[in-house]
Amino acid sequence: MDLESYWIDKIKTPYIGDDGAIVEETIYAMDAFWEGTHFKKEWMSIEQVAYKAFIVNLSDMIAMNATAKYMLVTVAFPKNIKKKVVKRLSQELSKLAKEHKIDILGGDTIGSDKLGIVITMIGESKNPLSRDKLNNGDLLAYTGDLGSVKQDLELLFDGERIPDNSKFYRPILREDFIRAVTPWLSAGMDISDGLYCDTNKLLKINNLYMQELKIIPSNIGESGEEYEMLIAFNPKNLNRVKKIAQLTNTPITIFGRVINKESELYPCGSQHF
Amino acid sequence: MDLESYWIDKIKTPYIGDDGAIVEETIYAMDAFWEGTHFKKEWMSIEQVAYKAFIVNLSDMIAMNATAKYMLVTVAFPKNIKKKVVKRLSQELSKLAKEHKIDILGGDTIGSDKLGIVITMIGESKNPLSRDKLNNGDLLAYTGDLGSVKQDLELLFDGERIPDNSKFYRPILREDFIRAVTPWLSAGMDISDGLYCDTNKLLKINNLYMQELKIIPSNIGESGEEYEMLIAFNPKNLNRVKKIAQLTNTPITIFGRVINKESELYPCGSQHF
Repeated sequence: MDLESYWIDKIKTPYIGDDGAIVEETIYAMDAFWEGTHFKKEWMSIEQVAYKAFIVNLSDMIAMNATAKYMLVTVAFPKNIKKKVVKRLSQELSKLAKEHKIDILGGDTIGSDKLGIVITMIGESKNPLSRDKLNNGDLLAYTGDLGSVKQDLELLFDGERIPDNSKFYRPILREDFIRAVTPWLSAGMDISDGLYCDTNKLLKINNLYMQELKIIPSNIGESGEEYEMLIAFNPKNLNRVKKIAQLTNTPITIFGRVINKESELYPCGSQHF
Repeated sequence: MDLESYWIDKIKTPYIGDDGAIVEETIYAMDAFWEGTHFKKEWMSIEQVAYKAFIVNLSDMIAMNATAKYMLVTVAFPKNIKKKVVKRLSQELSKLAKEHKIDILGGDTIGSDKLGIVITMIGESKNPLSRDKLNNGDLLAYTGDLGSVKQDLELLFDGERIPDNSKFYRPILREDFIRAVTPWLSAGMDISDGLYCDTNKLLKINNLYMQELKIIPSNIGESGEEYEMLIAFNPKNLNRVKKIAQLTNTPITIFGRVINKESELYPCGSQHF
């Protein structure tokens, strides 16, 4: 068991399991974006770091069909950071918060060897999309194209550059689609650890299994940090889901059917580099 | 201007200024407790680190007359940390949350060179105590005894040991006092950067000044991380405040009177080591 799973196991709280925690109509999520854990300094400008830290938290809100309202931000500044860079970071976060009508409520700063951002985001949803209501017989699908992030990460590790519009820098979130389709879904989550690992997670929480309807090659299934959506729905809603996908320009790929008969899970290795 | 003040200045949000942010009856606070910024590893056991990270956030809630309800926790684990230590940390945080009837809603983990904990705490208050309603003529007072934390920190820096009940490890929070006295106060905040710096902060926010009623020596005024309370009240409430202090076993020291005539502020240097 990796350290994160071990920690989650030990901290024992009924809330952990979804992208965010649901308390009545409020959704809470907290995600870090940290040099050495999630990125290397030479890969990204300070604006790209701020953007990604923001967007992975926003993704948790969208994945739960919530509207983000507030955020708190703790930033770890390396000792030698220039004020100019601090200013650019704060400007980017302020701009993103403003664009998404999110109020920044506060936070903290620390001195550190590494640059890092921890964000807590708080949103509202009258109809949250969770992971725990998967049903036997549901169809499993994912949005968009998967695989490019794994490819781009490999290039980054090889010291190559990747384009500014790479989904590693600019994930595509599916807000309009999720908002419209949630009433027809039984479960949903964002794909942060890769389709293989996240599908397993979804199945395990519900104590269910899957029959493959489409073979997913490893370059697609192992691509993490995609922030596309993994969704599940009753086959009777297939036409509605397809229609909403079409109306919101959201490609979807159906790849599995949920079964209750024990069967093999996807291979899922380590989830972070 | 230090980096934290610069950051706060640039991030520009009307919420920053109090120990927590007030949104209707909900109070939000986020504080980090980080190796290298707030402590050295050899100073503290993992339980003491967990306790202090928890208590500095709880202090923000109490300082605003709020009851903590929820928390999210992000932990930075050094690469070589033992599972046993991770377990002790999670047990201590779970225990503290349970004791204070706080639900842990989630969080994140990162790999890091340093050990660190970032907590977001969310509380409720129907009558929050803020910093911005100070009045000309108010009396300024602090709770408890100040100075021992500065002394203990100096010992720690000299490589000495300090007792387990040092207020550096176990700050004394004034929950009962603050809950009872809030209706009679005009402003309050916890003393984290030292009485000198925090008094200046309180006065500056309100564009007011102070006349010393009692000379505060620097070993008291410069002692940070005390987490005692700095309070202000109309002199007509003096007897009530004194009575509540007595009933809750809370020593208070009146040291100043708020004036609107420009006068010298306390000396306030760097606020973190």
